[in-house]
Amino acid sequence: MEKIKNYIDQNKDRFIAELMEMLRIPSVSADSKYKADVLRTAEFVKKSLEAAGADKVELCHTSGHPIVYGEKIIDPALPTVIVYGHYDVQPPDPMELWDSPPFEPVIKDEKIYARGACDDKGQVFMHIKAFELMMKTNSLSCNVRFMIEGEEEVGSTNLGKWIHENKARLKGDVILISDTSIIANDIPSIDVGLRGLSYVEVEVTGPNRDLHSGVYGGAVANPITVLCEMIAKMKDENNHITIPGFYDDVLTLTQGERDELNKAPFSLDEYKKDLAVADVLGEKGYTTLERTGIRPTFELNGIWGGYIGEGAKTVLPGKAYAKISMRLVPNQGSDKITKLFADYFTSIAPSSVKVKVTPHHGGEPVVTPTDSIAFKAASNAMETTFGKKPIPTRGGGSIPIVALFEKELGLKSVLMGFGLDSDLIHSPNEHYGIFNFLKGIETIPLFFSNYAEMNSK
Amino acid sequence: MEKIKNYIDQNKDRFIAELMEMLRIPSVSADSKYKADVLRTAEFVKKSLEAAGADKVELCHTSGHPIVYGEKIIDPALPTVIVYGHYDVQPPDPMELWDSPPFEPVIKDEKIYARGACDDKGQVFMHIKAFELMMKTNSLSCNVRFMIEGEEEVGSTNLGKWIHENKARLKGDVILISDTSIIANDIPSIDVGLRGLSYVEVEVTGPNRDLHSGVYGGAVANPITVLCEMIAKMKDENNHITIPGFYDDVLTLTQGERDELNKAPFSLDEYKKDLAVADVLGEKGYTTLERTGIRPTFELNGIWGGYIGEGAKTVLPGKAYAKISMRLVPNQGSDKITKLFADYFTSIAPSSVKVKVTPHHGGEPVVTPTDSIAFKAASNAMETTFGKKPIPTRGGGSIPIVALFEKELGLKSVLMGFGLDSDLIHSPNEHYGIFNFLKGIETIPLFFSNYAEMNSK
Repeated sequence: MEKIKNYIDQNKDRFIAELMEMLRIPSVSADSKYKADVLRTAEFVKKSLEAAGADKVELCHTSGHPIVYGEKIIDPALPTVIVYGHYDVQPPDPMELWDSPPFEPVIKDEKIYARGACDDKGQVFMHIKAFELMMKTNSLSCNVRFMIEGEEEVGSTNLGKWIHENKARLKGDVILISDTSIIANDIPSIDVGLRGLSYVEVEVTGPNRDLHSGVYGGAVANPITVLCEMIAKMKDENNHITIPGFYDDVLTLTQGERDELNKAPFSLDEYKKDLAVADVLGEKGYTTLERTGIRPTFELNGIWGGYIGEGAKTVLPGKAYAKISMRLVPNQGSDKITKLFADYFTSIAPSSVKVKVTPHHGGEPVVTPTDSIAFKAASNAMETTFGKKPIPTRGGGSIPIVALFEKELGLKSVLMGFGLDSDLIHSPNEHYGIFNFLKGIETIPLFFSNYAEMNSK
Repeated sequence: MEKIKNYIDQNKDRFIAELMEMLRIPSVSADSKYKADVLRTAEFVKKSLEAAGADKVELCHTSGHPIVYGEKIIDPALPTVIVYGHYDVQPPDPMELWDSPPFEPVIKDEKIYARGACDDKGQVFMHIKAFELMMKTNSLSCNVRFMIEGEEEVGSTNLGKWIHENKARLKGDVILISDTSIIANDIPSIDVGLRGLSYVEVEVTGPNRDLHSGVYGGAVANPITVLCEMIAKMKDENNHITIPGFYDDVLTLTQGERDELNKAPFSLDEYKKDLAVADVLGEKGYTTLERTGIRPTFELNGIWGGYIGEGAKTVLPGKAYAKISMRLVPNQGSDKITKLFADYFTSIAPSSVKVKVTPHHGGEPVVTPTDSIAFKAASNAMETTFGKKPIPTRGGGSIPIVALFEKELGLKSVLMGFGLDSDLIHSPNEHYGIFNFLKGIETIPLFFSNYAEMNSK
């Protein structure tokens, strides 16, 4: 423990400087114009792993962005931890809401501000630096494999294929992931559930061209209006999703389990104040923690159509579009939900429009065990570094690949994240606390030593 | 007549070349980045009027874009025609749907393609060239005043003020406007009614920032979803607008008047085929001609919110926006309808969002007389040049200033337009037939001579 703290103290300025260098590369995986930058980021990860002491580091090329693989096998008899993370980031839009440019990291109030600072470059880099620390202090107590991908924000499709093809070299005992949050810096927690995801883009076509709304308005289907009406039909007055069959596979929790979940520290007043809303809005009969943890959702992520510039244009547009995502809970299946959505959405379209549904990407919901050695190793490590036992929580977000690790590799994951919900990941002014970054580097080596020790018993 | 035809024959190539020069200047009044171009266009109009022989030509500056005024008073005893038109154009978006750049006019299949080719640069330029023709052939038979503005596409607010302040110099007998369409090149028509307009922009605010849709989705009002639900509430299942009081002032036509209106040549099959729609959509109980001619409408002109780039972003946005226009019919009032909309829209917002309604511009509906000397002068002129008596029709569009001419100057307008509904005004690939352009130049001098002659009787 002393060794860990000393190494961090002596090297923390360099750790931060290196992370900031990584944050300067705009690795936006969703937008093809950043393709070269995504590749540069992969090369940065490769170089960092090599410098930290990993072997066999390589960029594994896919039909999309590359996966960075590296390993340190110190003894085949020891357990092997597979560290997963991603070096790609969300698009920075809307740019005008950033206080400082998203790819020019700055430190303010002990936080690093940049796109990807927390999600997930900052958290990935904790693992690389914790690995460096274990190597330099001769304390690595398990084998380790790194699998850092560049397509998490667009659905990890190529990682899925790559894992399937590389099962042989991915032998391991547990997946360790830092891509989630703790409740607060003085209330550590570990996610034990993640929602799945169905993400679709819809296109509604009315007339074959943009029309003058005065000449044609009132007589021709307006695709924006029709799209809005169709979206309005997707939920009933209780904010229950109306897609037939949508809830069929939803795992219902017992009242006891729900009571347990609702014991997590949460203040509705603080929550509303933080978001500056007069009221929350969600499915009737469930608390906010339940709505984000154990219930599926239907959210509009984007909508556009017609004239969106300054001033007025009296156009009746030919097309309108929306991006829609549904968060899924156990035991919903992503492909099934996407199909149920597409069927229903198409069925409610009036004959005056044409509808196209394009699935973007999906992921399956997961629940991770709390009785495993790996979970206990993580829990004990956090208890040591935070001075408090972490609370098991259900995260609302999705890491689609987690279900696939289980399916393809037969391995469970431990979601030992160090972010905060207030880190504005996916939003302008994303940031990551230096406290959290360093706390991660301090905790990870303890996980390794706990895990090795508990496995040897 | 011979004189007119000869002059046109000898000068038509120059007329077209000059119009194309005018079309090259991107006079988009709605977008402030084109401010200098709008001014350049006004100067072009001024120069053209001077070259054609107008006196006292000047740019009348306003708090927005300037009005070009010019006159030729040949004899105070003769009637005075005030020619109104506009040199500003609609925004060219969506740019990617243009086959050739909107401000690089090209001629294809005897049509000039450019933004503003028909609406209204092409039709304004017919008047300037017809005036030149009358001056050069010594046949101007009435006094004429030109009043060509640069803010028609954004509501003519400053023209309204200017007219109010310049009543003294705007003495005249009739307003002549070419900013409407004929049914077909072999079916001439004259608009005798125009719809009014209320144009509003709405903003729905949910949380105070963009959120991660996984972390907050399902628990916080999504402003896109709420906006869609609110828009869906604006019409009932019969496509009747639900704003309380919206129809209170609507002038109901007798069955006889409706029958008359429905006699205009119209094929629903052709209409659907032209727009490539399987079905039309509109208010129950009315035909397509009635829906666009005598009934008010509620149309979405634009909508946007959240992530609209390539790929997927799992964001729950803080805001969503829409541009909405309502076409009004006699005796609806624009300010009243805007207020009814704002009150209703605000009233149906859930407490979890904030709503802002910003009125853009409005205009009052008008009906122009068919028994006036001016109408007959126009009708006879078209009958001579087209070889067929024009059909009186009700246009769906709006020229907000027409009602104001009546109110401020006590003058009725004649809507002698030469466009076609298929000219794609307000859309990509706007064009204007050379046939129509030259037919206008041929018809306008006949209107002047008919009008002078009928007035002298």
